[in-house]
Amino acid sequence: MKNLNGEIITNTVEFKDFKNYDGKEVTICGYIHRIREMTGFAFVIVRTARDLIQCVYAPEFSEYRLDEKLCEEACVKVLGKVVSSKDAKGNDRYELQIHDIKILSLPADNLPIVINKKQLDNIALSTVLDLRPISMRNPKERAIFKIQEGIQRGFREFLSSQGFTEIRSPKINFAGAEGGTNVFKLDYFGKQVYLAQSPQLYKQALVGVFERVFEIAPVFRAEHHDTSRHLNEYTSMDFEMGFIESFEDIMNMETGALKYIMNLLKTEYANEVEILKADIPEINEIPSIKFMDAKKLLVEKFKYKPSDMKDFDPQEEELLGKWAKKELNSDFLFVTHYPSKKRPFYTMDDPEDPEYTLSFDLLFRGLEITSGGQRVHDYKAQVEKMEKLGMNPAEFETYLLLHKYGAPPHGGLGIGLERLTMHLLGFKNVRNATMFPRDINRVTP
Amino acid sequence: MKNLNGEIITNTVEFKDFKNYDGKEVTICGYIHRIREMTGFAFVIVRTARDLIQCVYAPEFSEYRLDEKLCEEACVKVLGKVVSSKDAKGNDRYELQIHDIKILSLPADNLPIVINKKQLDNIALSTVLDLRPISMRNPKERAIFKIQEGIQRGFREFLSSQGFTEIRSPKINFAGAEGGTNVFKLDYFGKQVYLAQSPQLYKQALVGVFERVFEIAPVFRAEHHDTSRHLNEYTSMDFEMGFIESFEDIMNMETGALKYIMNLLKTEYANEVEILKADIPEINEIPSIKFMDAKKLLVEKFKYKPSDMKDFDPQEEELLGKWAKKELNSDFLFVTHYPSKKRPFYTMDDPEDPEYTLSFDLLFRGLEITSGGQRVHDYKAQVEKMEKLGMNPAEFETYLLLHKYGAPPHGGLGIGLERLTMHLLGFKNVRNATMFPRDINRVTP
Repeated sequence: MKNLNGEIITNTVEFKDFKNYDGKEVTICGYIHRIREMTGFAFVIVRTARDLIQCVYAPEFSEYRLDEKLCEEACVKVLGKVVSSKDAKGNDRYELQIHDIKILSLPADNLPIVINKKQLDNIALSTVLDLRPISMRNPKERAIFKIQEGIQRGFREFLSSQGFTEIRSPKINFAGAEGGTNVFKLDYFGKQVYLAQSPQLYKQALVGVFERVFEIAPVFRAEHHDTSRHLNEYTSMDFEMGFIESFEDIMNMETGALKYIMNLLKTEYANEVEILKADIPEINEIPSIKFMDAKKLLVEKFKYKPSDMKDFDPQEEELLGKWAKKELNSDFLFVTHYPSKKRPFYTMDDPEDPEYTLSFDLLFRGLEITSGGQRVHDYKAQVEKMEKLGMNPAEFETYLLLHKYGAPPHGGLGIGLERLTMHLLGFKNVRNATMFPRDINRVTP
Repeated sequence: MKNLNGEIITNTVEFKDFKNYDGKEVTICGYIHRIREMTGFAFVIVRTARDLIQCVYAPEFSEYRLDEKLCEEACVKVLGKVVSSKDAKGNDRYELQIHDIKILSLPADNLPIVINKKQLDNIALSTVLDLRPISMRNPKERAIFKIQEGIQRGFREFLSSQGFTEIRSPKINFAGAEGGTNVFKLDYFGKQVYLAQSPQLYKQALVGVFERVFEIAPVFRAEHHDTSRHLNEYTSMDFEMGFIESFEDIMNMETGALKYIMNLLKTEYANEVEILKADIPEINEIPSIKFMDAKKLLVEKFKYKPSDMKDFDPQEEELLGKWAKKELNSDFLFVTHYPSKKRPFYTMDDPEDPEYTLSFDLLFRGLEITSGGQRVHDYKAQVEKMEKLGMNPAEFETYLLLHKYGAPPHGGLGIGLERLTMHLLGFKNVRNATMFPRDINRVTP
């Protein structure tokens, strides 16, 4: 019989703390990332949870005898002395003089791809994805997903600080949230059910309970198209807030969240930002422009003749992004008041001009990363809007519980985590920023 | 054109801050929870995001004129003066003298159930669940899910402080993680795929990348049985850690996490703990006992004749829970070294006695809330174990990438969030602790 006291005793030292151990003996654990044999000594690069640590092997101070057994991707425990020196710029650098190495495990085979260069060179994306458990060991690939962690962490921390409650809505739904197309169907003990396209109806319902809620969870879209910016399963960061005075409160909350996220990345994820040479935007204010004004601007400034007056095509978004950067010095641009015909049934029309809505998209460097807006909260208004759109309110009885029994003025938004990560890091394909992407051709690994 | 600066200006004051506004005029927003008309005045209870605030209406200080229009579940903005007094015990209490009320929205109908008593009285669970968007407005129901937020927040915060990386594994899988039974099948553009039963294979793969990982996400089990402790969709809190020295490192990490969670609930969720009269356990150390020793103990202490020597039945778990509380003064008990035949293919056998495994369950007040253990990390050993179990290693090629190309000694565990919430709050049915439960009979709301 043994007792566990939950006190975590760490015998290893993290690289960032080496400065406190100068000249002292420490232990590190990790993978052998690379071995570079030199004349009379060797560099042994150890890959730990977040760093690459340069260790130096030399017979005069290493008790361990380097032989062929120690190979790349072996898991080891290294005992050694922290040694500091100055780099060319005069900054402190630290390495480890190896005293001893204990091999914890050995791989069964040589790697099928080279992962220990700065980046994966000339490897097709499909191979990178097929071998994700291995290709992600490359420090640059790994950094992408540490940044992705930072984005969701920032979103959550900021909203929590603003009184939002974290929720978990069910992913097995009886009805599709947005009306029924593009949903994955599932046999559920003889009933036909759907995978959630969005937590929309649940997050609205819970505004009536917690006032402000957020969720970070998978959503599923059975879209047939195979593009570089769509996935069939992705992570949606959603929030919904009650008692708003205007739909601009939602945009302002998003602005605050993005500021917090970018600042978090620059500080707590500086290592990964550096590895990826990521251009993290500086946000002071985010400008906004009305949909129709943006359409006019596209004609006037860019002579771009719109093909669709109800929405933007990708090229229009790109032009607006360029304009916002050049004229307003902003990486972000809100476009507001989208036409009523293009927004979902729960969107509130602008009382001043019901052809348009109290809704917005957020463009980031010319790519849409958010859709949001104020929702209808009055029962009668929502039922009438549904009927006008040819929907049957009886099918939405549960959804309408919110409106029927009292809802505050409210609204919210959704951000695709992988798409934001992709664009922030300058990738052209969302799969680069997705650990295990699901698309029309891929469900493995 | 307007700019959003992301600075959140709050015009309302939270109840917990009323002490700083004694005698001052403040604004609050919320739902009218209850109106109690007295002779010459009225109590108007306003339900905000986390509190019930007693407001007092009286013609002599209220500009607003109370009439029938102001009803329960109306959303309002109340302007009033904070007034303090002493309660029977001499503690400060605060209420609001209503100056003015602005109605933001009105419900379309009277509530179908009474939600403004201390708890939902004599309402069948099925009705509570059918009306979740409404029933959860009851402060006691709402508190359950605020506690649930606290549990996942504590799990995440503690693990993040220990260097764990948050991951998001795909929920659409090509193969079932645990071998293929009890999975929901899905048609995916003509391919048969499965909903994830567990993030097991992904979290192991990512130990090779991040060393320590965790995930809080939905899992899906197509189990036919309809019991009070099982759901077909639930939230799994999983972690996996590499470079362990012993499987007890995993148990110790869980002990640390549970200590942190319980402390967080006692401090930051004290309001909800009080509403629910929840008995939050005090954890100093968690004792552990070997599976076979526990079986012996059940015979010796309780004369309980086991029906199955490979696992415990619920009654055995309950007896062990009682024993741990009485003899060891612990609400928790680890049971270790389960028989090899009852644990999954990736479980590491005990080298000292391969009939048993380096695995554990955690019992909390006599209910299993965790399964965990050390995993096989050697490629040859894992392939041999699979073959011995009649599995085809070729079908697990992606999974075995980890082992083939180097894996550290590692292990982890999973905790069912709803089940832990249920047992912590003393419910007998997991549906009481699930916002929108999915079982064999229920997929709505």
